[in-house]
Formats: sequence, C-alpha cells, structure tokens
Amino acid sequence: MKHALSVSREQDFAAWYQAVIAEADMAEESGVRGCMVIRPWGYGIWERMQKLLDEQIKATGHENCYFPLFIPLSYFEKEAEHVDGFAKEMAVVTHHRLIQQDGKLVPDPEAKLEEPLVVRPTSETVIGAAFSRWVQSWRDLPVLINQWANVVRWEMRTRMFLRTAEFLWQEGHTAHATVDEAMDETLKMLEVYRAFAEKCVAMPVIAGEKPENERFPGAVATYSIEAMMQDGKALQAGTSHFLGTTFSQAQNIKFQNAEGQQELAQTTSWGVSTRMIGGLIMTHGDDDGLRVPPRVAPYQIVIVPMLRDTEEDAAIVEYCTDLVHRLNQLDAFREPVRALLDKRPAKAATKRWGWVKKGAPIVIEVGSRDVAGGNVSVIRRDRLYREDGKLDSRIVAKDDLVGSAASMLEEVQAALFADAKARLDVAIDETIADIDALKAYFTASKKPGWALVQWAKPTGAELEKVVQWLKGEKLTLRNVPNDAAAADGVCIFTGGAAVERVLVGRSY
Amino acid sequence: MKHALSVSREQDFAAWYQAVIAEADMAEESGVRGCMVIRPWGYGIWERMQKLLDEQIKATGHENCYFPLFIPLSYFEKEAEHVDGFAKEMAVVTHHRLIQQDGKLVPDPEAKLEEPLVVRPTSETVIGAAFSRWVQSWRDLPVLINQWANVVRWEMRTRMFLRTAEFLWQEGHTAHATVDEAMDETLKMLEVYRAFAEKCVAMPVIAGEKPENERFPGAVATYSIEAMMQDGKALQAGTSHFLGTTFSQAQNIKFQNAEGQQELAQTTSWGVSTRMIGGLIMTHGDDDGLRVPPRVAPYQIVIVPMLRDTEEDAAIVEYCTDLVHRLNQLDAFREPVRALLDKRPAKAATKRWGWVKKGAPIVIEVGSRDVAGGNVSVIRRDRLYREDGKLDSRIVAKDDLVGSAASMLEEVQAALFADAKARLDVAIDETIADIDALKAYFTASKKPGWALVQWAKPTGAELEKVVQWLKGEKLTLRNVPNDAAAADGVCIFTGGAAVERVLVGRSY
Ligand SMILES: [Zn+2]
Ligand SMILES: [Zn+2]
Repeated sequence: MKHALSVSREQDFAAWYQAVIAEADMAEESGVRGCMVIRPWGYGIWERMQKLLDEQIKATGHENCYFPLFIPLSYFEKEAEHVDGFAKEMAVVTHHRLIQQDGKLVPDPEAKLEEPLVVRPTSETVIGAAFSRWVQSWRDLPVLINQWANVVRWEMRTRMFLRTAEFLWQEGHTAHATVDEAMDETLKMLEVYRAFAEKCVAMPVIAGEKPENERFPGAVATYSIEAMMQDGKALQAGTSHFLGTTFSQAQNIKFQNAEGQQELAQTTSWGVSTRMIGGLIMTHGDDDGLRVPPRVAPYQIVIVPMLRDTEEDAAIVEYCTDLVHRLNQLDAFREPVRALLDKRPAKAATKRWGWVKKGAPIVIEVGSRDVAGGNVSVIRRDRLYREDGKLDSRIVAKDDLVGSAASMLEEVQAALFADAKARLDVAIDETIADIDALKAYFTASKKPGWALVQWAKPTGAELEKVVQWLKGEKLTLRNVPNDAAAADGVCIFTGGAAVERVLVGRSY
Repeated sequence: MKHALSVSREQDFAAWYQAVIAEADMAEESGVRGCMVIRPWGYGIWERMQKLLDEQIKATGHENCYFPLFIPLSYFEKEAEHVDGFAKEMAVVTHHRLIQQDGKLVPDPEAKLEEPLVVRPTSETVIGAAFSRWVQSWRDLPVLINQWANVVRWEMRTRMFLRTAEFLWQEGHTAHATVDEAMDETLKMLEVYRAFAEKCVAMPVIAGEKPENERFPGAVATYSIEAMMQDGKALQAGTSHFLGTTFSQAQNIKFQNAEGQQELAQTTSWGVSTRMIGGLIMTHGDDDGLRVPPRVAPYQIVIVPMLRDTEEDAAIVEYCTDLVHRLNQLDAFREPVRALLDKRPAKAATKRWGWVKKGAPIVIEVGSRDVAGGNVSVIRRDRLYREDGKLDSRIVAKDDLVGSAASMLEEVQAALFADAKARLDVAIDETIADIDALKAYFTASKKPGWALVQWAKPTGAELEKVVQWLKGEKLTLRNVPNDAAAADGVCIFTGGAAVERVLVGRSY
C-alpha cells in the first residue's frame, strides 16, 4: 500500500521521524547550531500542551513566576554535584558588547564581564537564591512556583524536539518544611505528568523512580514517566525530583520552625519539555505522517472545500462557512471545538493530504455534490483506510456531522490512547530471569520492547558494574514502576535477593 | 491623610514606583546584573496581557512560532544599520563548556566557539533567514508570524519592568508582496496595540509615527503608542515598524511575482513587552499601591474572611466558600470571573491592605456580623476612600453582590480608563508657537505634560540640531499623532512652513 510519506517506520524509523516533522511543517533546522525553528503546527501543539498542563499546575496550587536567563558562575560553584552534571554543556556569556575590527564584528575586549554568566541549563541555583530571600519562617512555607522558559544545554548530536541545544519547558520549584511534604509534592507532580501524558497526549506511560545512576545532579530521588515509542525504545517524558536539602544548603534556604529553631527547607523540582512533542510523534505517527490527539491538536477539524473555479464555488464556500461556524460553537473535552475552514488557493487533494500529514484528527471535504445532498465527506485520521486499503472517506449528513463531531473527537482521542496502550502492554516482558535471557530478548527482535526484571538495587560500584554491562548491550535502566509487584526472586544482575523490579530498555 | 505606601507620588515618583512594585510583590532584584525576578502577582498580570493580546494577534491572522535564542554574529554583519543600533548592547556567548581551574569554574579555553553567538536583542535577522527559506513565490505571501520570547539588551542603568537587560515580549514579523500591504499590516498592528492598551490595560495612548531619529535600526518607518505616566512623562508602550526591503535584502527574502520576475519582499515587525506593566503601574497606581484594571488582574475579586479563632470561623469560611464559588461562575468581559478566597493564616486587616497594595479591583470582607445579616463588606479599589477620608467599605447583601459583581468589574475598568484619559486630555498643550514658550511650558511646572507643536519635519543634520536642542532641555520627540489636525503655521524649531504636528515631552 502506498502511503503519504516516502519512508516508513519499518524501513528507517529515524528517517521516518524526520520526514514526519518536515512533512507536517512542525519544525526545521535553523542554521544556528543545535537550535531549531518551531513552526506554527509544532508550536501550536506546544501551546495546547502548555495550556492543559498549566491548568493542572495551577490547580495543584502553584503560581507562575519568571527568573533570569543568566546565572552567575559563582552560583554553580556552590553546589559541586549539580555543576558536575551540567558544567560540561553550558553556553557561557563572556562579553556584553561587539565592536568592528578589520571590517568584522568581534566581542569587544573592553566589554569582558568580570564574572561570566551561564545561560540557564535549569534554574535550581537562581531560584534557590530567591527562595532564600523569601523563606524566613515556617509560615512562609510551602513555596510553590513554576516557570515556563527556554533553557540551553550544549549537545553534540542533536535531534529535533528530542535533544536540542535550546529547548522550551516548564520547571516547577517548591520548598517545604518537612521531608514528608516534599516527597508528597514530588509524587503529586509525577502523577500530574502521568495524567497529562495519558489523558491529553494519549501517550501511555510508566511512572516510577529512577535508579541512583540516573538521578538528576543533586537530587536525593528522581522519578520519571517513561513512554514507549513505536520502535520499542523508551522516552523519558517528564521528571520529578526530591532534592532534599542539597540546594537549600548551597543557597541557604533556612526557616525558623514553630519551635524557634533554624532548619533547612526541603526542596523539589520537576519539568516537562518540548521533548513531549517528540514523544507524541513517535507514539502516534504512522506512515502517512503525524496523528495528533484532539486535545492537543491546534485544529481538531479541518474543512477542505473542493473548489473548481466554477460558479458553484460560492455555494460551497457558503456551505462550509456555515459548517465551520456551527462546529466552533460546539464543546468537546469541556473546551470550544477548534475547527478551521482551509480556503487557501491550492488543489483540494493537496490540502487533504497536507492535513493528513499534519495529523488533524478529522478532515472534512465538501464538493458540490455534498452541498446538493446536504452532506459532507468525513475522514478520521485515526482510521484512514478501509479494509480494502482505500481511503476511508464517509459521506455523512451535515447536521449529523455537527451532532456527532464532539463525540467523534472523543472517540479519536480514546482510540489513539487505546492503540498505544495495547502496544505498550504486550511489549513489556516480565518473565526474564537471568542476563542471558535479557540479552536474548533484546537481540532476538529488531524492535524489542522493555524488560521488567527483579534486581537487588545495587549502589555505588556494584551499580556501576551493572550500568556498564547494560551499556555494552546498548541498554539502560528506565525506572522502578510505582505499581510493579513486589520482588520475590533473585537479582538477575547480582544473583542476590531481589528487592524490587526495574524496567530495562533501549532509550532516546 | 495616611496612605498604605510610605512614599507618595508627589514626594518622589521614582521611589514611589519602586515601592509599589515591592509592596505589591510584583518583582524584585535577582542578584543577576540587570535582570529581575518577576513574582506571581507581576507575572500573573503579564499572563493576562499575553492572553488578551495573543487573541488579537491570532484574530488578525498571525500564527505563533519559536525561533532560536542565539544568533550567529555573521547574521548581524549583513545589515549594517541594524547592527549599529544593537551591537553596543548585546550579550555574547563565546564558550560552550566550563572547567575547574585552581578550584574555580572558568570557561574552557578548548570549548571556544568558532563563531560567537549573540543572545537575541530582537529577531529580525534570524527570522529573516527563515523567511528566505519559506518564501519562493508570491503564493507563499504574506507570511504572518509572531513569537513570545525573552530578549536581552545590555543596559547600564536598569529599572524594573521599564529597562532591564532581559525582558519578555512578543515580536511579530511579516513578509508581503507589496509596500501597500506591508504598510497596512504595520498600521493594523499599531491599531491592535492601541485597542489593547486602552481596552485591556485601561491606558489611553497616542498612536502615531516616530520621527526619523527615533526609528528602529533598519526601519523605513516606525510607529508607536505613547502613554502618559502620572508624572507627565511619556512611555513608549508598543512599536510597529515598516521595514521595507532592508531585511529582505540582507537576508535574501525574494519571491517570484505573478509575472515571473524576482522581487524582494516587504517586511514588518512589531512588539509589546513587559514594559507595559511599568506603564500600568505609573498610569493606575496611587499612594496606596497598585490598581489593576479588572481585565488584566490575575484575581478580580478577593474575599477576606475575618477569622478570630472562634467557633464562628467555620460558618464564615462556609459562607465565603459559597460566595467565591458563585462569583467564579459569573462572566465579566466575556470571560469567567476570577475570584479568590484568601484563607492564609494572617490577620484580616493585614490581608485587606495586602490586596489593596496589590490592586485587586474588588476586595470583599466577611465577618460574623455579615454572615448573620446575609451581607458582605465591599471595597472598590478605584474609589478607596469616602469624601471624609475614611475607607469606603460598603455593606451589601450577598445576593446583590453576586448579581452586580460583573457590572461592578466593568465599572472599575471604565473608571480607571476615564481617570487616565481625563489626565491625558488636559495635559497636552496645543497652543505653543515658539521654542521660548516650549521651554517655559516644560520649566514652569514640576509635572508638565506634553506639547503638540507644528514643525517642518526636518531630516538629517537639521533634525539632529533640533534633537540636540531638545536633549539640552531633557526633551524628546514622541510621535506625530495619526489623528492630529493638519499643520497650518510655522515650524517652531526652524521657522519654516510646518508640515505636521509632533508631540514633545520628557520620557522614560
Ligand atoms: Zn502500509
Ligand atoms: Zn493622599
């Protein structure tokens, strides 16, 4: 069967990924090393994600703020473990002026900064400094804030949405009086991320704790949601960190408790980024391009009038204008429906396939015969073809379409989630009992899923040995699922008594 | 009369401005040179501004994108006039890694960038490069895009919201086939800004064209909206630029026209920034703090329960919970009302004055006597005091308050605009006929407004002479109002025949 993209997932998953992004006009290389241009369709999806996640962040009591892009070097020197994790990949501002020299622009040597500034790779240090000003007494706690921002981590090999030098994200930062409260917060936000990924992005995830070697630099515990891409690899789609007193020690975030004693605050941080868009693509895309879940689609329903430069065109446009108006007055997912009438001067078939590749959930075509019959032709992006391989375009009465559009969008959302969930559920092997079986599992198939294995949760050098062995097999430890069964066997790595189950897989 | 702030506008306007920001918890110094921390109340106002302006930007056919933070130096070298305007105040990234040296973190000499990167001061160059990829044929035009982003301009003397090294803004960028269409776009967005400033921020403005010396670097024409602060100074609150072919030449934005010939595109750009928050403060603030127009207030109605640690507290909280619930189900300005029940553990009077200083449009207090009588006590922030100087707190039946809350918010919005408009209207002197009178006007009063004077619209060296003379008087040319009467006299600067009327004033 012929598809809209020139490369299929089966042929070359990486090339397919790039093709989806290009054909859906989501993003492109910018000419600036490691940075991309996010085009309207890609940015529109991000705006939808922002809106829905921001609502949940606010509903859980957090307020948005904005902190500086630049962080003085000295802030990083205060927290050794944190800087070790980031120092190797930061953009450093050293000058604040340019001059002309021999006809070329160069940094002005006389405008060299006394203290270089780092472009934030994450904001624990500068937000910690603010917390130390805001927190004096137990009455000032908790502090619950979030910011939507751009961050920069220098990366040698970049990949659009998945790994770019600059990316967009939200970073939540909180300070609490007790360990219990901070841990509750860490897990609450992990749950917000899980629900957001599953309900809004229709992307099933496994929520759990990262093993020690995968912790955020400076964290006491790091939790993640892990999603399975269609090539079987894992994508870490969001993280939530319990930071203990690491940053409150470094930044002096102290409070007087109810008994009058000075205590260090317990802090957390948590983030979701434009990487989630990469996850959406690799979860829902198919060989005809992207499929966007309706809740995060910039347009949920696109109407393509089939114009032929004839007298009948005016009647078709009028018919479609009425339709888009009626659709936009509907509600779906407790928000107004987002329908678009695509009047651009291009061939209807070109526009139809353009919207198929962009993944608009529902595409409606209207020709003069539809107008005459009071009908529309409806394509659902989640089931594009009939059994016989032909495009599944169904003629529906216009009024019936308006009456069913909201529930149809809800069906598409549910179908995309159900597809992805079914794929995930069969792709986690829980039966592997030794490393030979583990090795076999990941070499037997071109597209293995993950293995959930029992382990002794080794630490330090013993853990490092496991990690290095896995690295040799191009495998990584993903997380210890929150809802995994208790361990009841031996550790497949050490042979010792297992204490929990950990997910192993290839990853992005 | 005693007020909530320790300094009045009359005493020291600059100190008053800082006091409003501090007492309303809007923003604070970050410890990073020239950068501020925008706290929840300040950022919440920005979020409201973003939402309302973004709706208008989209309603006029623009789509949001995101472009790189970093711009290679060579992009600036292509456009001499543009770089002259910005090169002197840009943050330059020269290294991409840090190393430890003698126990200190320093930029790694081995990680020096071959080509330094500039942190965007504005994005014409990098967006122009994208346009040159996107535009091939007249069919690709117009391109209508916008981005919400942070930008950096190194500033020696900074002032919160008004002039900071890093600030937040939106920048619209468009490309068109003809001069006419690009000029229409330039003026359309100026009108969007005017309507936004007046209808949403309740800040009256004068829209007009900037004189040559005040043009954006590289622009053919620059338009602005100018607002009058309570000290009589002008604040440029938004600009819209017709860029002609300056950037399409530098970035090679060419298209094949319908006749098959290559042409350069005509481009525009336009922006509004967090500076608008500074304008809001200096337009509406009073000696008791900020007054936020309801349309951009994060919370429009705040309910303060007067709790006394007695048995009656539970009944008061229940009464207030019902009230906040009912208020939040109302619509005002065609959006859901934003009401908050402030349950923080602090004294009611402290909370009341906190919200007064933050400028919440309506503050409602509820004590046990109110509960017993089915009443609430209502304070309107736009008319805080009675004639006798006492706080104007009015007892209203709870049901009546719910019934009138939406229209009350609309009244507050209208009253704040009417106040500011009345101030502006009497503060523009249109009678000044020579420079002695001009000088007298600006020296006679401690708080002069603006002068609208006739001039010959000199250019080049002749204009520079005028600008320098004005500078000696600490005056600037603001703009030539779009709706000013035609000239009918002589130029007050040159004595020649006047061709138009230009606004003169002190400025931020
Ligand atoms: Zn196929
Ligand atoms: Zn007074």
